Amino acid sequence: MGEGFGAWTMGDDAALLDHVTSANIACGFHAGDPGAMHRTVELALKKGVAVGAHPSLPDLQGFGRRRMNVSAVEAYDMVLYQIGALAAFATACGGKLAHVKPHGALYNMAAKDAGLAQAIARAVKDFDSRLVLFGLAGSELVRAGEQAGLRTANEVFADRTYQADGSLTPRTQPDAIIHNADTAVAQVRRMVKDGKVKSIDGPDVVVRADTLCIHGDEPNAVEFARKIRNALDADGVRVAAIAV
Amino acid sequence: MGEGFGAWTMGDDAALLDHVTSANIACGFHAGDPGAMHRTVELALKKGVAVGAHPSLPDLQGFGRRRMNVSAVEAYDMVLYQIGALAAFATACGGKLAHVKPHGALYNMAAKDAGLAQAIARAVKDFDSRLVLFGLAGSELVRAGEQAGLRTANEVFADRTYQADGSLTPRTQPDAIIHNADTAVAQVRRMVKDGKVKSIDGPDVVVRADTLCIHGDEPNAVEFARKIRNALDADGVRVAAIAV
Amino acid sequence: MGEGFGAWTMGDDAALLDHVTSANIACGFHAGDPGAMHRTVELALKKGVAVGAHPSLPDLQGFGRRRMNVSAVEAYDMVLYQIGALAAFATACGGKLAHVKPHGALYNMAAKDAGLAQAIARAVKDFDSRLVLFGLAGSELVRAGEQAGLRTANEVFADRTYQADGSLTPRTQPDAIIHNADTAVAQVRRMVKDGKVKSIDGPDVVVRADTLCIHGDEPNAVEFARKIRNALDADGVRVAAIAV
Amino acid sequence: MGEGFGAWTMGDDAALLDHVTSANIACGFHAGDPGAMHRTVELALKKGVAVGAHPSLPDLQGFGRRRMNVSAVEAYDMVLYQIGALAAFATACGGKLAHVKPHGALYNMAAKDAGLAQAIARAVKDFDSRLVLFGLAGSELVRAGEQAGLRTANEVFADRTYQADGSLTPRTQPDAIIHNADTAVAQVRRMVKDGKVKSIDGPDVVVRADTLCIHGDEPNAVEFARKIRNALDADGVRVAAIAV
Repeated sequence: MGEGFGAWTMGDDAALLDHVTSANIACGFHAGDPGAMHRTVELALKKGVAVGAHPSLPDLQGFGRRRMNVSAVEAYDMVLYQIGALAAFATACGGKLAHVKPHGALYNMAAKDAGLAQAIARAVKDFDSRLVLFGLAGSELVRAGEQAGLRTANEVFADRTYQADGSLTPRTQPDAIIHNADTAVAQVRRMVKDGKVKSIDGPDVVVRADTLCIHGDEPNAVEFARKIRNALDADGVRVAAIAV
Repeated sequence: MGEGFGAWTMGDDAALLDHVTSANIACGFHAGDPGAMHRTVELALKKGVAVGAHPSLPDLQGFGRRRMNVSAVEAYDMVLYQIGALAAFATACGGKLAHVKPHGALYNMAAKDAGLAQAIARAVKDFDSRLVLFGLAGSELVRAGEQAGLRTANEVFADRTYQADGSLTPRTQPDAIIHNADTAVAQVRRMVKDGKVKSIDGPDVVVRADTLCIHGDEPNAVEFARKIRNALDADGVRVAAIAV
Repeated sequence: MGEGFGAWTMGDDAALLDHVTSANIACGFHAGDPGAMHRTVELALKKGVAVGAHPSLPDLQGFGRRRMNVSAVEAYDMVLYQIGALAAFATACGGKLAHVKPHGALYNMAAKDAGLAQAIARAVKDFDSRLVLFGLAGSELVRAGEQAGLRTANEVFADRTYQADGSLTPRTQPDAIIHNADTAVAQVRRMVKDGKVKSIDGPDVVVRADTLCIHGDEPNAVEFARKIRNALDADGVRVAAIAV
Repeated sequence: MGEGFGAWTMGDDAALLDHVTSANIACGFHAGDPGAMHRTVELALKKGVAVGAHPSLPDLQGFGRRRMNVSAVEAYDMVLYQIGALAAFATACGGKLAHVKPHGALYNMAAKDAGLAQAIARAVKDFDSRLVLFGLAGSELVRAGEQAGLRTANEVFADRTYQADGSLTPRTQPDAIIHNADTAVAQVRRMVKDGKVKSIDGPDVVVRADTLCIHGDEPNAVEFARKIRNALDADGVRVAAIAV
């Protein structure tokens, strides 16, 4: 969320905040100027939604979605910088930062690159060891968080397809995004209840679903969020922010 | 300090840190990428120098020295963002942020614009009310800090000339910078002992000298710092970081 | 036009291009990454719309709307850089650059600051002396263009109100923008036919209307453009790109 | 060259320009603000040195040295943008652009990635088909330039070591840079006279040396350039800009 920048807006954060329990808020490197960060943090706290930092590679033009060959040291420093910046708005609004979820290419790189994952986990821990680190379910990032002694959340996706190794299908591929709400809802229910998701290659993948991501920049984000929330409520699944 | 960026360096921070008690560290908007911030904060803390945030207008090309017509709301948000980012490195290094000093054009604008000064003071206070706000001696920024209930430090300059109204001679004027170390030392001693400085227009200006600025990007910064420190020591003036 | 950036879009350029004869295209400093520039130039040329560079102060966060204290030398260099970049896309698409119109704060500053205006006019001329320089009707920028021997276009605005001195009411004031299409149409017809516009202060201002600006980023830009074009057609006013 | 940015400088361009016949000038994406570009182009032309564009990935923090996963379309657009911007300064200074050499990671990526190389070659050709495209000797970039009908220059390096496949040893490896001037001179003489260079893996690599790169940002760049130039003069090798 908070993925506008200056004169540009993206997504309907106000509406989406009514359906989620945790918000990942852009920190200025892929989106989110200081004003956007302030307004989004304020709105999330007001609606009782847990505030998380969503640090990215420094790539405004590419919305943080282009892999960059950054070192572990660079990753540590850029993540720490962005966490600090976002946390300042939480503090100023009388709240506190609850979690950290890397964005875009950094998230996907850290899912497979243990060195990068450890650098990110260390940045989170060195800032505040009570923060929860969100990573792709079963990824190196979650593992690095656990090894660092952080609480972690295995994240699953409603609107993205999976590959046989449990990684997300890259956005450059045509079948990366699930556009149909019913398909997304079915995928979510199965991940939450059975701990499984069908990969685009065919076989099921085992996933642990601690947290579920809705992309705020997709045009149908609010509809997806509402339908998924209703389905989970109907299934008797209690949705809540990971306690701090 | 920490005013390099990426592949570029500026000033000899390591040498200068041996002569000062407080460091104002760039936060990424006029200089200072995350890596430079980390290294500078770490070095300052290691040398027992108090760490301060040096937030700027967002103007890397102009090194934060070009006035920009930002609103008070924008100033609040950009200062809060940068304080948070810098403080994160202090935290991760096991230290803490001690003070805030706006940089360049933002500093000079806030010296005269009460609305801007109040926005900055509020950002500092909302982040941490124990921080000390540094402002030009006798300026609106110091006044705003006092009104906000912050501790403040009236800042004087060794290497800059003064105008009759107590403001610094703009860098665009030929006599803005004092290049002679002895002249700088004499100016400092008089400001500290007598609370006065001769303006370029002739008359003395009354100044309160709580803290003294040395510009780390000037070629003779280290020599100035050493000579001034020696002179103050000889005068029996104890130089120390403003306690936190 | 072309005022998106990376993942962000702004305005309906494709629709607006059906109603205008000249397009001012962002050059990357306030908006417009290289991809957006390419697509917009290509579309404009395909629709027979004259392509112009829309250079700005370097302020992506502020969309080029915040005044910055740049020197004449800096203005010359930044305008030349942006003209060259935009012209490259025109060349690559088999077309050519027709005109230059500074954007936002740079435009308004150059309307009153003769030194800045001359620097901009010189940059345009040094790049290609056949280019047409667009400036606020009766402004220093138009005067500087004439003195430099450039062809110039006095520009008037459909959706902005005027002050008694012929300058635009700043966007920070509540009555700066005309939201009603009929009011805008009436203002345009009077400027074109009578060479006059009523200022917000009351008195008429004399304006010469060589070219008329429609802001592509306003939500009702296409509706405004269509209504104005229809009204001018009905008045027997032939709308055409300023010939190159 | 021209690899400063704003307040930051890098290398002694004025001295180096006395020893080279072609200059690759930064275009703003990894270094080189508009003012730096202007001054460097002007100085090069004044000294009779051929002016080339040195376009980069958009990565100021990483000096364009970090690989980024850009698409061929993005590469085409960013190269065209930067060529246009640099060419504008050549035009304004009464000269013309002679060649294009991609910078850093973009150069190394285009050496091996045919799709990227073709996109870059197409951008050069679409801007001006008389430009010379510089690429790593024997690389995909040179091949793409030839296929596009451009004149090309196979580039060799004095101060970088080679791998067995003819690519440069990455800067992240300890033996990537040759710091000894005599070693560099010997490598150059052998490449120019025998068309061979010893790789760090042992075997010789065949290289065609149309142009020789000296890195302006290395501390001993001027000394290297002078010694190499003297050695080539002594060998009776005439050094000249590739004619336009």
